[in-house]
Amino acid sequence: MNTRPNKPRHLNPGDTVGVVAPAAAVERSHLERGVGVLASMGFRVKVSERALARAGILAGEDRERAGELAAYFADPEVKAIFAARGGYGCGRLMPMLDWDAIARTPKIFVGFSDETFLLNALVDRAGMVAIHGPMVAMDLARGLSARSFEHMKGLLLGEIRSFTMDARETVRAGNAEGELIGGCLSVLVATVGTPYAPRFDGRVLFLEDVGEKAYRVDRMLVQLKQAGALERVAGIVFGAIRPIEGDEQEARLITRFIAEETAGLKCPVLTGIEAGHGSENFVLPFGVRVRIDGAARRLEFIEPALA
Amino acid sequence: MNTRPNKPRHLNPGDTVGVVAPAAAVERSHLERGVGVLASMGFRVKVSERALARAGILAGEDRERAGELAAYFADPEVKAIFAARGGYGCGRLMPMLDWDAIARTPKIFVGFSDETFLLNALVDRAGMVAIHGPMVAMDLARGLSARSFEHMKGLLLGEIRSFTMDARETVRAGNAEGELIGGCLSVLVATVGTPYAPRFDGRVLFLEDVGEKAYRVDRMLVQLKQAGALERVAGIVFGAIRPIEGDEQEARLITRFIAEETAGLKCPVLTGIEAGHGSENFVLPFGVRVRIDGAARRLEFIEPALA
Repeated sequence: MNTRPNKPRHLNPGDTVGVVAPAAAVERSHLERGVGVLASMGFRVKVSERALARAGILAGEDRERAGELAAYFADPEVKAIFAARGGYGCGRLMPMLDWDAIARTPKIFVGFSDETFLLNALVDRAGMVAIHGPMVAMDLARGLSARSFEHMKGLLLGEIRSFTMDARETVRAGNAEGELIGGCLSVLVATVGTPYAPRFDGRVLFLEDVGEKAYRVDRMLVQLKQAGALERVAGIVFGAIRPIEGDEQEARLITRFIAEETAGLKCPVLTGIEAGHGSENFVLPFGVRVRIDGAARRLEFIEPALA
Repeated sequence: MNTRPNKPRHLNPGDTVGVVAPAAAVERSHLERGVGVLASMGFRVKVSERALARAGILAGEDRERAGELAAYFADPEVKAIFAARGGYGCGRLMPMLDWDAIARTPKIFVGFSDETFLLNALVDRAGMVAIHGPMVAMDLARGLSARSFEHMKGLLLGEIRSFTMDARETVRAGNAEGELIGGCLSVLVATVGTPYAPRFDGRVLFLEDVGEKAYRVDRMLVQLKQAGALERVAGIVFGAIRPIEGDEQEARLITRFIAEETAGLKCPVLTGIEAGHGSENFVLPFGVRVRIDGAARRLEFIEPALA
């Protein structure tokens, strides 16, 4: 099975991987620590000269960040691109990127959070698989758990060709199959009504976020619902949707709102898979075919992520 | 000039005005104080029995809140409806409201913030004028400035038939004319891609918000831009867009982002009119024709708000 026209090739030990900063400004010590982790995996690492640039809160001007990302896609030496960090800034780049050019040089791209903008566009505009996963100057710098580190490595090296992830709860029962899309709820919602929203029809929608008030989580789910997205997807899988740390009342409200907004749907809904902010952040290949098994509380990746 | 098919009639002293709570739960002491202000203006006040209901953070269940709002529109005794407060909850009501029924009994509706959902739908789905202005258990309870109180009273009583508002700055020069729409930026953006977004073409877009981080303000403006809204409007008028109180760095960033996101537009842009959160909150009739005079830094209301 191969749903993607431009599935990137898996990495081999010794390959060169690139690090770019398409979003918020990056701190040197974090970047260096994360680059060390990539090197320890056996890759040569080519870090963008502009990765530590600053323009206000952003990692350089929009044209610079977009240009660097395009250059790393075009560079035949670079076999995979890792985002340095999220924060904010990818959305501004969307109209500046030549998606047809990017589609001609498919390669692994890894990021999440603000990079949700890029992940879904890589899937829908460039026909690629894009990897929702840890970022260099963030999770990689802080250190992944052994399990999620090994999972990432195995997937990127093409050793893991199918796998399953356990959810905490089946909120709505049933089974479904579709290509995985989605990402950070607040970023995904910022694409609604724009040309950069993913196609929702028949897809499995992954959603996670952190630090949002419960009423905002609900407002975002309501927007996805009123935009017709939730009724068009084949199924929904939530990662962590966590409020400001330690606010138990907000956490309960979020659980309630998720139950309310999904109550009227026909598709299966899982919650609590370990991907995204405030979790072990296991890599999730977007664009590949997955199956929701509601009874087993499980998300199954049934297609190899990489060629 | 009369652009609206269902322009509500102005109030007369002694008229009955209604108070409903379509959004977040309301505190009794605030509500009572605000109702006192309405009474002091010479109106009889009919407060919804459900105005102090609670369901989690909301002022009762969705069906109750929607039902009460519909009942107050249908009630011939009630000549105007004032929202008790915003917070959160109006968006959930949108699919439950019968806009055709509401269009048959046009009347003054006053609210802002979360009620942005309702204001734009009253304009576009019910052909009405809707009043962006103070809410009973909030600004009215706290007390308006004498100027904004007299302005509200004069407008609701039909004594003020045209007026102008001064902006602080002309960010993009030019003149424009169109019907006023918009409201709270974060709420307006939550309608994008849904059936409840206002029409943007040829309209004058008013935007205000408070307590949002600069990067979020930018993300929302980018969404409006990428959705085509900013290039379709005739002009843009910003009220206060304030960060968390006292954060000067964030305030400067917001100013910069507004300049950046409007730099490529062709329409005039004003900032700093006194409407919305953290301002004197002068009432703005939505749906009526306004003129932007860039050179004079002025927004002119050139059509009577009420019949």
